Amino acid sequence: MSRTIALLTDFGLDDPYVGQMKGVLADKAPDSRIIDVSHGIAPFCISQASFFLAAAIKHFPDDTVFVAVVDPGVGSGRRIIAAEFGDTIVVAPDNGIVELAEADYCGTMIVTDLSETANQMRSSYTFHGRDIFAPIAANIACGSSLEMLGSKLPLRDVVRTGLKKPLWMENGVEAVVLHKDRFGNLVLNIPENQIMPERMSIPDKIPCVGIDAGCVRRACCYAELESGVLGLIVGSQGFYELALYQGSAAEKLNFGPGDSLVLKWGGI
Amino acid sequence: MSRTIALLTDFGLDDPYVGQMKGVLADKAPDSRIIDVSHGIAPFCISQASFFLAAAIKHFPDDTVFVAVVDPGVGSGRRIIAAEFGDTIVVAPDNGIVELAEADYCGTMIVTDLSETANQMRSSYTFHGRDIFAPIAANIACGSSLEMLGSKLPLRDVVRTGLKKPLWMENGVEAVVLHKDRFGNLVLNIPENQIMPERMSIPDKIPCVGIDAGCVRRACCYAELESGVLGLIVGSQGFYELALYQGSAAEKLNFGPGDSLVLKWGGI
Amino acid sequence: MSRTIALLTDFGLDDPYVGQMKGVLADKAPDSRIIDVSHGIAPFCISQASFFLAAAIKHFPDDTVFVAVVDPGVGSGRRIIAAEFGDTIVVAPDNGIVELAEADYCGTMIVTDLSETANQMRSSYTFHGRDIFAPIAANIACGSSLEMLGSKLPLRDVVRTGLKKPLWMENGVEAVVLHKDRFGNLVLNIPENQIMPERMSIPDKIPCVGIDAGCVRRACCYAELESGVLGLIVGSQGFYELALYQGSAAEKLNFGPGDSLVLKWGGI
Repeated sequence: MSRTIALLTDFGLDDPYVGQMKGVLADKAPDSRIIDVSHGIAPFCISQASFFLAAAIKHFPDDTVFVAVVDPGVGSGRRIIAAEFGDTIVVAPDNGIVELAEADYCGTMIVTDLSETANQMRSSYTFHGRDIFAPIAANIACGSSLEMLGSKLPLRDVVRTGLKKPLWMENGVEAVVLHKDRFGNLVLNIPENQIMPERMSIPDKIPCVGIDAGCVRRACCYAELESGVLGLIVGSQGFYELALYQGSAAEKLNFGPGDSLVLKWGGI
Repeated sequence: MSRTIALLTDFGLDDPYVGQMKGVLADKAPDSRIIDVSHGIAPFCISQASFFLAAAIKHFPDDTVFVAVVDPGVGSGRRIIAAEFGDTIVVAPDNGIVELAEADYCGTMIVTDLSETANQMRSSYTFHGRDIFAPIAANIACGSSLEMLGSKLPLRDVVRTGLKKPLWMENGVEAVVLHKDRFGNLVLNIPENQIMPERMSIPDKIPCVGIDAGCVRRACCYAELESGVLGLIVGSQGFYELALYQGSAAEKLNFGPGDSLVLKWGGI
Repeated sequence: MSRTIALLTDFGLDDPYVGQMKGVLADKAPDSRIIDVSHGIAPFCISQASFFLAAAIKHFPDDTVFVAVVDPGVGSGRRIIAAEFGDTIVVAPDNGIVELAEADYCGTMIVTDLSETANQMRSSYTFHGRDIFAPIAANIACGSSLEMLGSKLPLRDVVRTGLKKPLWMENGVEAVVLHKDRFGNLVLNIPENQIMPERMSIPDKIPCVGIDAGCVRRACCYAELESGVLGLIVGSQGFYELALYQGSAAEKLNFGPGDSLVLKWGGI
């Protein structure tokens, strides 16, 4: 069996797009295993895709070829790159998708510019996921070396979008919501290795009635939380999360991806 | 090729969770085939997952390893078990998920307590699906015996939630809706081997206008039903279903999972 | 490895149906690769399924076995067929699903009536996807010849639904929306090989405020379009599409699948 090919897109699963990419992969890399990371990235949301990619890499086989296509610039002159993180290779448009993975790999990322190879391929103008990214990933999964597909791109030339870091203050921290999951857990941009106090509060006015919404307590797992009490938990994606036990923190707080919030030490 | 691994969760497909579980499985059981039963279980809804699992087992290869993760107690002290139904093995939290499958197998279920093995594994507190259930399932799919992974748990100690059975009355039956599907068909908890009369009615007030909503007729397939007439059909999941031809019985009746209704013999 | 089996249904992914079909396929064709084309076809929408199928075939391995199940007549007397397009085989109900693929293959389609084989199989009345289509597709993927499974059906007897073609007028064309994708792109029934002028307009009143909504410009890719300007683009599915750059043409125009619109040459 050749390498695992993992797909991450903002295509959703209802349209014909993901199926056609897999058809191409089945045709050109018949021995590979194809796995969906997710196709639920919000349309055009590069920062969310960057989070999903970084969070996925460490849980996949080392030699996985990721195809990450969130690509509002499709058909324009944007570069197509392959980014290496150890044995893992990510094929993607050069628009910032690899930024969080790069941070995880502390400057050891190696990037190849595949644009010339891509320009020689027969392609639609609007669906490079199927016509360019999938065939290139199939080639790599079947053994093509990146040296044959392009030349090295200096890291300073790779596009980055400037993802926000938490802002530490004397009595608290300003964080940004990276992702809201199906259960209403809010993944914050505070890395899990940060030490956080036992009690905090969210000082902003919160639009919910009859619940002590501002109070936030540290907990290890959801089931440790009393009903209705907001918890700050080391989540499974490498970051702290705001959570409720069997409830939606996102709904309670009315926060979503991209929103900022302040956690203040102490709390109610 | 090693065994098929079948995944059933309430994770949805938009979040990073299912993809990461598959990454772990691809890494640890590279020759297995991974199949999604469904990830659309309502969050924390153990009874719905129990129905999906029981309905799936008989249609999968005999030696399939199911991973069933609907797990509100993740990170707490709840047990992790492997339930054997013939050659089929289900790895799951001990919270009632296997209850309907157990009923199908008439007391031949064998359960192994995997909690000690699980406790020795490196894991997040919030995502045992990826960190515990997937690696254990991969081990089993690759040949590890359950004897090596834990010790037998007496069946009386397995958690059950007490799923409701239909309540038979002189002139009818009170049933519970197990599942509402995409087409609006309502799967009831009345087993398909039960003999039901040709004409029935649903005596409760039904909030729809201009249609003879209370009348229910037995039919073999959807296309047999006249437009707008509710049918009681032996569905494909082992139970009777309420259905409309090219319409939504769920919308017509305003019923959903967990709702009770009375079918009265005779009818309009 | 045996042939690729590609699944196209209106079952969605939340219900137990797709998982059970895959369980059957894993059991009966253990060496095949199973790929989802899509399960997001609108319930009972044969024309949309016909579009998805035709668009998919050319991107899958030549010897793929497609299983296309949008089947409001399940359990009634409708035929079950296998349609051959070169080495590709489509197993489907005989209700018009293969109509657009037939048009692509210019009369070289060969159809086998599988109804007798199907009638001899043990099946539920309501889920032939699992009980009939999947086992037949597995047989074909494993090498069974169509001659053994049925007899040829004259093409004049194959059901067609009469999909609409664009209506060309002196100064424009009336087109129909085949599909609205996740990004709000509207796939029209105008084939990509048609030459279209640079500037057009949509003369009908359009319910949006403050934007020059009627103006439509030809563009090669989304990123070429100025913000808010409707583009007519050769899409990736073999047809022209109406699109906005990082916006939803469908929302702007309030159009969806099945809707007709007129493109008038010239424009604002």
